[in-house]
Amino acid sequence: MEIVKYPAREQWQQLTTRAISNQQEVIEKIRPVLAAVRKEKDQALRAYTSQFDGVNIKSFRVSEEEIRQGCLNVSSQLKGAINEAVRNIRKFHENQKHTVKKVETAPGVVCWQRSTAIEKVGLYIPGGSAPLFSTVLMLAIPASIAGCKEIVLCTPPDKQGNIHPAILFAAHLTGITSIFKVGGAQAIAAMAYGTETIPAVDKIFGPGNSFVTAAKQLVTLDGTAIDMPAGPSEVEVMADASANAGFVASDLLSQAEHGPDSQAILVTDSEKLIAEVQTQIAKQLELLPRAETTKKALEHSRLILLKDQQEMLDFTNLYAPEHLILSVRNYADVAEKINNAGSVFLGNYTPESAGDYASGTNHTLPTYGYARAYSGVNLDSFCKKITFQEISEEGLQKLGPVIEVMAEAEELEAHKMAVSMRLSTLNKQ
Amino acid sequence: MEIVKYPAREQWQQLTTRAISNQQEVIEKIRPVLAAVRKEKDQALRAYTSQFDGVNIKSFRVSEEEIRQGCLNVSSQLKGAINEAVRNIRKFHENQKHTVKKVETAPGVVCWQRSTAIEKVGLYIPGGSAPLFSTVLMLAIPASIAGCKEIVLCTPPDKQGNIHPAILFAAHLTGITSIFKVGGAQAIAAMAYGTETIPAVDKIFGPGNSFVTAAKQLVTLDGTAIDMPAGPSEVEVMADASANAGFVASDLLSQAEHGPDSQAILVTDSEKLIAEVQTQIAKQLELLPRAETTKKALEHSRLILLKDQQEMLDFTNLYAPEHLILSVRNYADVAEKINNAGSVFLGNYTPESAGDYASGTNHTLPTYGYARAYSGVNLDSFCKKITFQEISEEGLQKLGPVIEVMAEAEELEAHKMAVSMRLSTLNKQ
Repeated sequence: MEIVKYPAREQWQQLTTRAISNQQEVIEKIRPVLAAVRKEKDQALRAYTSQFDGVNIKSFRVSEEEIRQGCLNVSSQLKGAINEAVRNIRKFHENQKHTVKKVETAPGVVCWQRSTAIEKVGLYIPGGSAPLFSTVLMLAIPASIAGCKEIVLCTPPDKQGNIHPAILFAAHLTGITSIFKVGGAQAIAAMAYGTETIPAVDKIFGPGNSFVTAAKQLVTLDGTAIDMPAGPSEVEVMADASANAGFVASDLLSQAEHGPDSQAILVTDSEKLIAEVQTQIAKQLELLPRAETTKKALEHSRLILLKDQQEMLDFTNLYAPEHLILSVRNYADVAEKINNAGSVFLGNYTPESAGDYASGTNHTLPTYGYARAYSGVNLDSFCKKITFQEISEEGLQKLGPVIEVMAEAEELEAHKMAVSMRLSTLNKQ
Repeated sequence: MEIVKYPAREQWQQLTTRAISNQQEVIEKIRPVLAAVRKEKDQALRAYTSQFDGVNIKSFRVSEEEIRQGCLNVSSQLKGAINEAVRNIRKFHENQKHTVKKVETAPGVVCWQRSTAIEKVGLYIPGGSAPLFSTVLMLAIPASIAGCKEIVLCTPPDKQGNIHPAILFAAHLTGITSIFKVGGAQAIAAMAYGTETIPAVDKIFGPGNSFVTAAKQLVTLDGTAIDMPAGPSEVEVMADASANAGFVASDLLSQAEHGPDSQAILVTDSEKLIAEVQTQIAKQLELLPRAETTKKALEHSRLILLKDQQEMLDFTNLYAPEHLILSVRNYADVAEKINNAGSVFLGNYTPESAGDYASGTNHTLPTYGYARAYSGVNLDSFCKKITFQEISEEGLQKLGPVIEVMAEAEELEAHKMAVSMRLSTLNKQ
């Protein structure tokens, strides 16, 4: 890990850089995949699945029987844990429901917003050795609370053409309407354009490798919405002398184990803590099975010593971390001053893992500095707000002349006429 | 206008098609513009402004003196109307403020969201013969209520290098921090990448021609957020026998005058109304200065006769109109069943013009069917939601084992260790 002591403000921007993205190159590479799926549909999906996943799939749709079997193969201990997490995630997201509030903006002019579910959504769950069933929960639970009618899940099959039981169990539990065995950029294309088997959806959610991310960005150009752009995962721990070096080290390592591109940053005003965290990292690293990946991520991770809490705050808001852990004495005050972050963990007993799995908050969060402009996934992500307005005859009599003056100044005469005709009818009454 | 009577459901999809977009071609055309601005900054902006706007601009920034002069040149009648609109728009958007609600998802586990302003936003206002000062209000007012620190406005200069006084007045009134004389794709590139004069922003808002729209879509690939994708404007009027044919005609025309690509659709169960609306359109068209544009838009507009209200509702939710006017007897009931629309206008005395200018709702809305997945611009558009959580020692003792089981099942051992270390510290106490 790079150690930086008391950097000048001019250096800060450089210290917030992430692993370089070659997104543009990847975008060019996957254009043909999207075009092929758009044109040849299921046939293209079959060919890519054979090529990339090494398996020939006859039927992409996971059957009821496969789901039933999958659920039987999950241990009751894991089922219990998932059920507990579901309860908390549901509670947090249910509390995000929007309530209609009618506002009389002027006499007789009543306006309101109503939040309404996006009808068809597609969730992508990456494959790999470990089954990311927690991401199924994070996407399917708010989709189902929002009231989305069609919730489609795509995830790549293993070499035997199967989906991991824990994914099937999580999907079954949370109201997914169909599960398909297809992964990669081709899955994103299928959900964007539709195939004979896989329905086109209005919005696509979920993490993935750079191919999946590029595919999501590309389909937005054709009108499919996506949750947010994505980059490698990251954490910042802001810590002072009150922090526990062992806890801090374990939080940095739990970010680093995600992948070689992940980034873990410690920002502190305690030089002693930096030394202790280094010792702890070396010690804990020996216990970890993913040590190779983790070491690579640590290469572009940083321990940064700053002169006081104000500098720590300013640096944090500049970095805009996906995850931010506040291991400082006055964490509640500090939290109030955070303007750019995805999810914030307060105090010594709130590890990031809690939010990753079971506290109730969502773990699909803006990385790569996107927290400056994007929210993490939440109930809103599965809804759109429609505006309504109702104007009474008296209301229009008062507001009408204002509209006429403005429409005329913008040289939109028909806009003016739509009001004038109504006013003249009212005046005749 | 095309008249379609009692179309079969299979035909409906075809009836919801918009003017064909050649967005991909435009995207290829403007790539070099974006690359040039990114590399040569102000120098590229100068060259493009000379080429596209026909004027050599020395200083892009509008001076205090220019703003002062501009404000003097707006009639007091227009100022009065704008002030009234500002009051209503402010009232509606202020009522959209998010309140923090702490949720105890499990004992000792407290989670909440806080809505926080996006720090730097860029607003684009198109040029052209008429000054779109109303769009300044629609973007700058929520930006200022949200608390955005830097609110930059770009708009193309006229041939004399000036900005229309009404735009300067609206910008001055609503808290814009800097105004720049630059338009087109080059303005979007400037706000995305930053130049010597124009600061890079986190999110770009506002309408524009197909070049501006394509530029907005392209910069998202490099990480700048945008309000939403955009297409030509459109309206649907849903009307029954209770509707006033003159009002309906004027509403269709006020959409059609926006541009030759605009679309106006009437959906009704009254054959008589169709005939009356046709007569009214012919009559009103003669009074309109923009008749040529309007006629072109009417060529791909439609009057559709359906058999009952249920069909009208189903068609509407399929079409997902940007603007929807409900001129039906039971408009309040019908409004409850609308799932896909940008902004809905209820009853005979609520013309679209009201929402375009002065009722208080926002007029930056999803077109082209994007209402299926996107909201119009509202206060949320200028904010992101940050999640917070605080877990007590007791809370972690209860929730910790759940996290450990899940992390282990996902083979993320460091995630598990971040919890285990804390639990073992607590158990030693």
